[in-house]
Amino acid sequence: MAREMGEQPARLRSLVGRMPEVDELAARIRPADLHGVTIVARGSSDHAAIYGRYLLEAATGLPISLAAPSLHTLYDIEADYRGQLVVAVSQSGRTPEIVGTLRALCEAGGCGLAITNDPHSELAQAADAVLELGVGEERAVPATKTVTGQLVAFSLLAQALGPVPFSRAQLDALPGWVQDVLDDPEPVEAGLDILLGASNLIVVARGYLYGAALEIALKIKETCSLLADGYSSADLRHGPIAAVTRGFPVVALNVPGPAFADLAALIDDLHTRGARVLTVGSGFDAGISLPAGIPEALAPVVAVVRGQQLAHSLAQRLGYDPDAPEGLSKVTAT
Amino acid sequence: MAREMGEQPARLRSLVGRMPEVDELAARIRPADLHGVTIVARGSSDHAAIYGRYLLEAATGLPISLAAPSLHTLYDIEADYRGQLVVAVSQSGRTPEIVGTLRALCEAGGCGLAITNDPHSELAQAADAVLELGVGEERAVPATKTVTGQLVAFSLLAQALGPVPFSRAQLDALPGWVQDVLDDPEPVEAGLDILLGASNLIVVARGYLYGAALEIALKIKETCSLLADGYSSADLRHGPIAAVTRGFPVVALNVPGPAFADLAALIDDLHTRGARVLTVGSGFDAGISLPAGIPEALAPVVAVVRGQQLAHSLAQRLGYDPDAPEGLSKVTAT
Repeated sequence: MAREMGEQPARLRSLVGRMPEVDELAARIRPADLHGVTIVARGSSDHAAIYGRYLLEAATGLPISLAAPSLHTLYDIEADYRGQLVVAVSQSGRTPEIVGTLRALCEAGGCGLAITNDPHSELAQAADAVLELGVGEERAVPATKTVTGQLVAFSLLAQALGPVPFSRAQLDALPGWVQDVLDDPEPVEAGLDILLGASNLIVVARGYLYGAALEIALKIKETCSLLADGYSSADLRHGPIAAVTRGFPVVALNVPGPAFADLAALIDDLHTRGARVLTVGSGFDAGISLPAGIPEALAPVVAVVRGQQLAHSLAQRLGYDPDAPEGLSKVTAT
Repeated sequence: MAREMGEQPARLRSLVGRMPEVDELAARIRPADLHGVTIVARGSSDHAAIYGRYLLEAATGLPISLAAPSLHTLYDIEADYRGQLVVAVSQSGRTPEIVGTLRALCEAGGCGLAITNDPHSELAQAADAVLELGVGEERAVPATKTVTGQLVAFSLLAQALGPVPFSRAQLDALPGWVQDVLDDPEPVEAGLDILLGASNLIVVARGYLYGAALEIALKIKETCSLLADGYSSADLRHGPIAAVTRGFPVVALNVPGPAFADLAALIDDLHTRGARVLTVGSGFDAGISLPAGIPEALAPVVAVVRGQQLAHSLAQRLGYDPDAPEGLSKVTAT
């Protein structure tokens, strides 16, 4: 896991370098009468999908849906996906449920794009076009470079489809920011104290960072066998906050942008409830800093890397092997 | 909470009786060139929305999306929702974020339908049409009759928009099934033993029942101040199952239908891991039974009532007041 985390700057630099290829691909596969985009994913890929969901809606202005695979693989409904770009995301390209869903939605008139590491996989063959991640084989069970690769793939696709809240120069700078984070592990080690001894914790964010909160929670859950759940700040306030009592650990992500004030207010509220809050972000005195100057819509990539560092270090301190969590295998046959 | 739970059969009977009105309303608001449906909701309403998401896609065959409110209330993106039916769900019709999102999506060309208890609310005024729940004022903080009302509203809307996997006669019979469940609280009291002493638990289901799993988890979380999380069986296998160790309590929902075998296999796996599994369902020897003969696509309504019974009884045994959970208010201003 640590080695694959370390590969990320180089892998992402290579992926970002393929921007012109993605521009060409997006122009080619975009249906003439585009009505919306549907994303098909599971697990960690699902969190990249949620990031993609926000970014693609910002870029196209169109409704973006996350597919409910069982409707197409179990219930076999009569679907009409004409005018839809269907983006299926799977590291291996072999998860049967993702392949089956993409196939069904293409048969229903959708135009299929596979985002995968393996351009010869079943998923790639079922699609009209492939955006190859090119991050190389991932051996550790907890996905790292695959997830950040998928996030960057969505940012490339979004900027190819319409206006996005970051520049091409900032996208080019992203792998450098990831390197900066990897070169600066100390704040994570210090922040861990807040999480030690917890049997469960919450990760909270809003907007573009919401998918990163879900992914950080999953990574901690996978590597540390403890219950970690991601929430948007709005959803947390709608009920689950009742479970936040004195001493409860919360990881809160925040960076400057339209959602900043909302998260800052929530962090205050959490302190009032006596929660132990570990903040990850920029633009304020965060416990774990993110690089200054990174635009909010690209911050999820570096936030996820901070989450990898957290999950890896916490697992080691708890005596777990982060490379082989108990009870999990790499490809899930659902 | 108990009184409002008891009102459900009568309230739902009255709602189901308005089937012809919903048929007329659906025909009137359906855009001529319908491309898809977007649902806007939060909290408990969000779980009704997830049920609606499955059912509306089965009925229309079109992609159904759940709105990301922050894109429209915080990020102010340029949206194009022509050809979209936008269904906003809010008990009070006063949650500012839901009102703001519906307004933005209608301005972007969407056709707005409000599902609310208050036909004079801001939400109703922002919409092109209103489906009034008519379940009456809800005083307890944990929503009960509102949620089952919303589930039934989605089933009425779906059958008005296209083919659904249940008949009108079965929809007519639904309030009677709800009464049967309320008249049979004993299995819940017996099943509680599995959950006592837990600091966290998981609720799992698949397909149509997935939204019910999320809602049951939220209800337990709200009333019992313990961490309960809902998962689809497919998502659970993709990571979180690693947190299920010996003695971990899991509530599993299952009824006959295309997803039955998948859930049955998961329940076996959970037993092998040493989990304490409380089953809720029909067609097998479930710990807490659901009425036999109810079609899978309507079973979420009775499963949610079983969850209300579980949450209410567990809260009482733990010494909490289920009517006024700590740290929560009825309308959340997000």
